Amino acid sequence: MSTGPGPAPSPGSYAVTGRTLPTRNQERASYDRALVHAILDAGYVCHLGFLRDGAPVVLPTLYARIGERLYLHGSTGSRPLREAGRPEPSRSEPGMPVCVTVTHVDGLVLARSAFHHSLNYRSVVAHGTARQVTDPQEREAALDALVDGVLPGRAADCRPANTKELAATAVIALDLDEVSAKVRTGGPDDEPEDTSLPYWTGVLPVSTAYGTPVPADDLAPGTAVPGYLEPAP
Amino acid sequence: MSTGPGPAPSPGSYAVTGRTLPTRNQERASYDRALVHAILDAGYVCHLGFLRDGAPVVLPTLYARIGERLYLHGSTGSRPLREAGRPEPSRSEPGMPVCVTVTHVDGLVLARSAFHHSLNYRSVVAHGTARQVTDPQEREAALDALVDGVLPGRAADCRPANTKELAATAVIALDLDEVSAKVRTGGPDDEPEDTSLPYWTGVLPVSTAYGTPVPADDLAPGTAVPGYLEPAP
Repeated sequence: MSTGPGPAPSPGSYAVTGRTLPTRNQERASYDRALVHAILDAGYVCHLGFLRDGAPVVLPTLYARIGERLYLHGSTGSRPLREAGRPEPSRSEPGMPVCVTVTHVDGLVLARSAFHHSLNYRSVVAHGTARQVTDPQEREAALDALVDGVLPGRAADCRPANTKELAATAVIALDLDEVSAKVRTGGPDDEPEDTSLPYWTGVLPVSTAYGTPVPADDLAPGTAVPGYLEPAP
Repeated sequence: MSTGPGPAPSPGSYAVTGRTLPTRNQERASYDRALVHAILDAGYVCHLGFLRDGAPVVLPTLYARIGERLYLHGSTGSRPLREAGRPEPSRSEPGMPVCVTVTHVDGLVLARSAFHHSLNYRSVVAHGTARQVTDPQEREAALDALVDGVLPGRAADCRPANTKELAATAVIALDLDEVSAKVRTGGPDDEPEDTSLPYWTGVLPVSTAYGTPVPADDLAPGTAVPGYLEPAP
């Protein structure tokens, strides 16, 4: 993946390749590892793209990052996870070509012109081949990271998967290799001739809010709400 | 698209096809048009999946629904939008096979076991062939819907696109034909033997929050904040 139109890779950034070089808004693109990691670590739901019968499929699913690897999981019965463990006809190695995309919307950008309306956002797009993880220790670390990625501290505060549950769970990994981030921040970019138009212009901030924890019906009375649930993360 | 393993289509639901029948959690799937429309109308950012050089690509982008059609837009210079107007080698008609997925996360579901952790969510997955929209009236309606989809009322309260801007904007459409929704609600599904474990269990609600509008630096003093911005939508 080190061949491509961009500069040579540095320890601090991902190499630029033909498919991580955007055709539009190149000023918003970044290959900085720290930025990519921060965007990934700020979320837990990705959109996984893969092929089924030659057509694209996009499904939402949980993910977690450990170092330079993303982990996804699911039932061993799920179609995409089975695919990742199966050799492709056109490839010598097992694996599934995927695109994993993570998006955070930070604001609605209201310009004076409809054309310049936009969103403030942070996104990461990772391309590569997902492979099934079979090493028990790596699987365990990935499953803990998937729980802690949603609520840090929760993995140690619940019952770990037992043998039967582990056997029913597929874990797939995607190495962070061909990766880019895209970020838009700031206010609207209006045309100079539009600045006298009478419309309100600016940004409406958008964020994710967490509500008051709702206990399960059968929660034992007196069970303390764990610290990782309040104050809201 | 009316052939498939599911029941015959009814006016109120989409036909079930091989690729809209989930392999897992079939009880969460729905083909109800009203539910699909409600999930789509509750959002404005989708994840668009398409193929580039035979590999899947997933990009976040705005969308809007009018009737049984989804609209997406972008620069005429953007790769996927160009593709949608170009005949494919393997097809007699122009168009681009796509998957458009919309996801809303409603809650973190904390079971007593790591295995039964889950999310409450609403998602829609639409498969089909996206085509460029060339009819001027349909393009205009789609562009208004894209602005109003983010903030209802805004399309009439900004400068419409001029001839040059319209020429630079590609609009693509995907008919809602092969579509499914998936919804999870409610509390954790713990194993009966786990109910005495001492861990907190329940749901942490998740929602999207809108902050206080931030005016652009060059907003004329005294410009009123429009009603569609406060109270927060």
